[in-house]
Amino acid sequence: MAEPATELDVVAVGNALVDVLSHASEQFVADQGVPKGSMQLVDEARARALYDAMGPAVEISGGSAANTVVGVASFGGRAQYVGKVRDDQLGEVFAHDLRATGVGYSTPAARSGPATGRCLILITPDAQRTMQTFLGASSHLAASDVDPELVRRAKILYLEGYLFDPPAAQEAFRVAAGLAHAAGRKVALTLSDPFCVDRHRDAFLDLVEHHVDVLFANEAEICALYKVNDFDAALQRVRGHCEVAALTRSAQGSVVVGNGAVHVIDAHKVDAVVDTTGAGDLYAAGFLVGLSRGRDLSTCGRLGALAAAEVISHVGARPVQPLARLAGALAG
Amino acid sequence: MAEPATELDVVAVGNALVDVLSHASEQFVADQGVPKGSMQLVDEARARALYDAMGPAVEISGGSAANTVVGVASFGGRAQYVGKVRDDQLGEVFAHDLRATGVGYSTPAARSGPATGRCLILITPDAQRTMQTFLGASSHLAASDVDPELVRRAKILYLEGYLFDPPAAQEAFRVAAGLAHAAGRKVALTLSDPFCVDRHRDAFLDLVEHHVDVLFANEAEICALYKVNDFDAALQRVRGHCEVAALTRSAQGSVVVGNGAVHVIDAHKVDAVVDTTGAGDLYAAGFLVGLSRGRDLSTCGRLGALAAAEVISHVGARPVQPLARLAGALAG
Repeated sequence: MAEPATELDVVAVGNALVDVLSHASEQFVADQGVPKGSMQLVDEARARALYDAMGPAVEISGGSAANTVVGVASFGGRAQYVGKVRDDQLGEVFAHDLRATGVGYSTPAARSGPATGRCLILITPDAQRTMQTFLGASSHLAASDVDPELVRRAKILYLEGYLFDPPAAQEAFRVAAGLAHAAGRKVALTLSDPFCVDRHRDAFLDLVEHHVDVLFANEAEICALYKVNDFDAALQRVRGHCEVAALTRSAQGSVVVGNGAVHVIDAHKVDAVVDTTGAGDLYAAGFLVGLSRGRDLSTCGRLGALAAAEVISHVGARPVQPLARLAGALAG
Repeated sequence: MAEPATELDVVAVGNALVDVLSHASEQFVADQGVPKGSMQLVDEARARALYDAMGPAVEISGGSAANTVVGVASFGGRAQYVGKVRDDQLGEVFAHDLRATGVGYSTPAARSGPATGRCLILITPDAQRTMQTFLGASSHLAASDVDPELVRRAKILYLEGYLFDPPAAQEAFRVAAGLAHAAGRKVALTLSDPFCVDRHRDAFLDLVEHHVDVLFANEAEICALYKVNDFDAALQRVRGHCEVAALTRSAQGSVVVGNGAVHVIDAHKVDAVVDTTGAGDLYAAGFLVGLSRGRDLSTCGRLGALAAAEVISHVGARPVQPLARLAGALAG
């Protein structure tokens, strides 16, 4: 850890959300007409109707890229987050939980407009999560919220695909990517969700081909991007476009493409999968901290697998064990 | 379950709070100058200072008596809650989580004044909880919030000792107890906390001797009430004052005094104690539902022990497993 104090490992830009987690039966998810395993955007009225119908819940700060930077900090990395909340109670919870993990966060809260965004998460007995997101204040993230100096300070800029849903945030996304490249930094993107890829396929293809250095996607997302049914076909398509692509396959581990080679990484063993929320977010955390600290791609993949294993072994999308301790040898 | 639909097992009156749970080291608790294992009342500024200092947290609806009625509902009992929140996000969370478990709740939210109350809970590695409570809106519960018809409908009125902290709520407490007795119903009280007993000893002694039919207390609380150091001395003092006294002793189980007899009940086995928050609240839930359904006192104590065991085996003060299923034979 000998870098100058001002250099960050990762700055992440994403939708700032509080997760509202509840256990639900398969029947309940079906009755609500929600595609199991997906993330759907909903308006406030729909979010309210689902909330009224669902069981008792637990509130835990979430947001895909925010979960990732919390993971980076848990590994001992230096990270900052950019995302928008409202100046309300859930916004305060979101900011507290980020800062309490050591992640820097200084995006000003909105003083008017919709409430802090939330993601209603139904966890079925098979540990899968089905999400309905009311973006709320997070959709008001603007290019002016991206501090150019902050982006220049970080080795890697990490962007979540979900950020393409609110139009104003798209602009913030492009501005941030431009600033990072102008400063000689890497730009990483996660595709976030196959339905999100469907909504923004052309934009994502352009980004992946011309603007992204490190791509994260799971099997469904990379297949959706290239409109193919077969993982190997998608793998062939992505090679050559990005410097690095890390493709996750749940229990089958991950495949990392980069430097002309393909690395197959096993999933990290877990005793019992309790809640898969955050698995992809934490895989990215481990991978990014490895990459920032100059580890080889196989090690990056293994760090990702380690972090994903921790987060799926309990309810909630943020680590409860310090990842630096689990990683042991990393903090050299 | 053959009672008429309008009769309730329990109506509970308490401080409506959202729990903010965080893991903390022994050192952190010591550094904050908080007596470990206690519940202290704090003002908003102190609550904010502690929140700023503490680690990332999880928000789960709490409130001692509210946890108890959620337990009653989880056993299949019929329960209603009376307590005050503000019309804010945490107030909405509190109301949702109660109603989602099947507990009736219709106390109108305050439209001005302090925010919904919260209880900052530090869980140390030994699974003990240390609490700092900002009462907020809950301290504005007034006698006018107690619906006489509701109290008459319930076999047992359950009151938390914590309710004696806000002066207006004391009045609500006395009004509710008067209504219950006038309708020939039982009044149950939990002493809540040894420090709470210290604050209100004379009032509690008067209540226990003249107005309470069923008393819940742990060892520290019953000793504090009678200013004795010895459990057996406290036991002798409480006999004869209440129809029933259920005295809990953590891992040593509980002692139930009533009908001229003393019943010693073993603690229910748990694999690992994770978080003791809510142990007393859930013991009361099992006991009350047994009492309401005419079970003998030993069975009531065993139902209490069963519910307490469930809640200490995970983070949070409300059951995650349906207690009716765990109890098996109860719902006859």
